[in-house]
Parts: sequence; structure tokens; C-alpha cells
Amino acid sequence: MDEERFARQRSFILEIDKEKLVQRQTHLTHHGRREDDAEHAWHMSVMAYLLREYANEDIDIARTMVMTLTHDLVEIYAGDTYAYDAAGQADAEDRERHAAEQLYALLPEDQGRELRAIWEEFEANETPEAHFAHAMDNLQPMLLNDSNDGGDWKAHGVRRAGPAGRNAVTRLGSEELADYVEGRLDAQVAAGNLLPDDPADSQEPVAQMNYVDK
Amino acid sequence: MDEERFARQRSFILEIDKEKLVQRQTHLTHHGRREDDAEHAWHMSVMAYLLREYANEDIDIARTMVMTLTHDLVEIYAGDTYAYDAAGQADAEDRERHAAEQLYALLPEDQGRELRAIWEEFEANETPEAHFAHAMDNLQPMLLNDSNDGGDWKAHGVRRAGPAGRNAVTRLGSEELADYVEGRLDAQVAAGNLLPDDPADSQEPVAQMNYVDK
Repeated sequence: MDEERFARQRSFILEIDKEKLVQRQTHLTHHGRREDDAEHAWHMSVMAYLLREYANEDIDIARTMVMTLTHDLVEIYAGDTYAYDAAGQADAEDRERHAAEQLYALLPEDQGRELRAIWEEFEANETPEAHFAHAMDNLQPMLLNDSNDGGDWKAHGVRRAGPAGRNAVTRLGSEELADYVEGRLDAQVAAGNLLPDDPADSQEPVAQMNYVDK
Repeated sequence: MDEERFARQRSFILEIDKEKLVQRQTHLTHHGRREDDAEHAWHMSVMAYLLREYANEDIDIARTMVMTLTHDLVEIYAGDTYAYDAAGQADAEDRERHAAEQLYALLPEDQGRELRAIWEEFEANETPEAHFAHAMDNLQPMLLNDSNDGGDWKAHGVRRAGPAGRNAVTRLGSEELADYVEGRLDAQVAAGNLLPDDPADSQEPVAQMNYVDK
């Protein structure tokens, strides 16, 4: 064993323990507490394995799981940016790139280079594995939120265009899963848990709208 | 898409969300809060990928990661049993077998059979992948606890024979990692954070022991 190499691996392993402290906006099923990035990564990695039959393209499942396990590590330094926080998203890329420099430098050079390349592949989203990893990254919180009557959307006043936009990315990884999500978004709009895209699409009956106008 | 099949997959995916609520005895680095089973499984899956070069035997890394991701799912129903709780360990096997019946029945039959077989392979611990998964299952809390001055051992009054016994299992997966752990256990005994195996091995100077005898 190369002692220095293993020391670097250990220091990375202990550093990424902090991913367990990065809180997300998504709440656990049964209206539970918010989840953290490590829990999210674990959940979507199990999902990637179980749902790989729905991938549009053949995927290398080992590479996909490594990608899902590690895709959010940069948030240890850069923080989690809520999907529908436009201001936060604007500079998230710079913060995350800087975080990647710091974090992957802890590892032995070959492994740092490899994990950084997998993260950049995820970010670029041009390979079958990245497409499916993004599908899981979107589907995992969507399933939790759907099971909670859209609680996270309601709390943030999210319009259908938000999750629908993410679902267009999911579609690159899986047409079948994206079709399912479209149906659920419609159902959540109908239930009043997700705002329609335009006030003119409101579910309020015309008679009531007329009444308000008087 | 087979709607009923996907409905079963979704019900399993939502059910295993509960793994995030199964608390372990291990504390996060920097004397943090206790971790949960999902965080533990995530951490040891990343470790399995990063440390696979130390496996005694060639391993299928995808199968090993699926095993590390899912090995504790039965604890959703059976609860976590602390490694050094002899009474709890005695009936843990029965509880976990019953839990596996319930949990894997949620999945489509082929996937339930597959994931249950992977869990039973982990439990039997006779394949290279199970050996290395057990090495990660032991090394992950050991690294956290070692970084916390043995806080979890101190809290439970653990003797060296406890982690050393687990390390004998780690050795089936990786001689090199087990050698490293032996050294750390010695260091933690010397530091007074882990009890020696026999009171006669106590670090107390002989003079003081004589004084007590007077």
C-alpha cells in the first residue's frame, strides 16, 4: 500500500462526510423533515439501478451510479441552490467550478481527475449516463414532492413551467419516465398544488371570475 | 411501459425513503450528530468505488455498489442493531429475514428476487463482492469514529476485541485495509479511547496498581 495515496483517499472520504450536512428543499415522504444531499444521492443511485430499463439509450450502470453518488459533492463548498431560485442559479456554476478545484485536489491525482471528469460529464449532460443521471436527479425529488401533495411547490409558489422545464431534461434520459411526470404535473395543477403556467389557465370557473370583475 | 410494474417500482422507491429515518450509533466527523442508514450506505458506496484497488480479489464494482447501497434496507422494518449489542444481535437475523420478506415483495417479482439475492449474498459473506462490501461496512464507521477520538467506543465502553473482531471480517475483503485498521486500534487503545482486551493489559503504571492493592 502506498501510504501517502491512502492518506489522500482518507482525507477525501472524511471531507465528503460534510455532504450529509447540505440541506435540500425537498421534504421526505409523509411530510417529513427536509432531506440532505447524501440521502438524495443514495436514493437516486438505488433508483438508477432499479429504473435503468427505462433509459432511452444503453447506459453503463456502474458509471451512472458513480455519477449519481458524487454529482452533488461540489455543494459541500458551493451550497445547494434550489432548482427554482433564478438568482442563485446564475452564479452557481462559478461557485461549483471553484468548489470542484478544491475538493478533487484532496484525492490522489488520478482519482481526482477521474471524479472531476465524471462531474463535468454530468454538468455537460451530453452522454447517455449523464442523461439518465439527470433524469434521476429530477425524478427523485419529484416523486417525494408528488407523494406530499406538492408541498415543496406550494411553499415556493412554483408554476408548472418549473418542473416541466426540468422534465424536458428528464426526457433526454427517459421518454417513458418523462411521460409519467407530465401526467403527474397535470394532476397536481388540477389539485391546486402546483400553479398553472399562466393566470389565464386558472382553474377558477368563469362565473366566479366575472363576479370578481364586477 | 408496463404501468403495474412501474407502480410497484415507485411504491418500493417511496418505501425505502424511510431508510433515512433509521438512526445509527455512529456520529459524523467533527463530533457531529448521529448519521442515518441512507447516509452510511451512500458514504460506503463512494468508498467502495474509491478503495476498490485494495480488494483482495477482483470484484464486480457495479454489483458491489448495489450491495452497499441496499445492504441495510431490511433495517427499515427490523431497526439498526448496534454492532456491540450482543442481545440485539441474537435475534437480529430473524427480524431481518422477516423484514426482507415484506420489503422485497413490494417490487416486481424479478427485481424483488434479485435484490433479495444480493442481500442474502451480503449476509452469507462468501463472495468477493460481499467480502469487500463488509470491509466498507466496517471501515466507514471506523474512520468516522477514529476521527472523533473514538467517541462512539467511549460512549459504549467498547473493548478492542469488538472492532478487532469486525476487522477480522474486513480482512476477508482487504488485507491492506485491515492492517491499517489494526494500527489505528492500537493507537486508540494507547490514547485511552478504546478499552484494552483484558484488564491486565491496562495502561496504568504498575506502581499505581500496587498502590490500589495496598
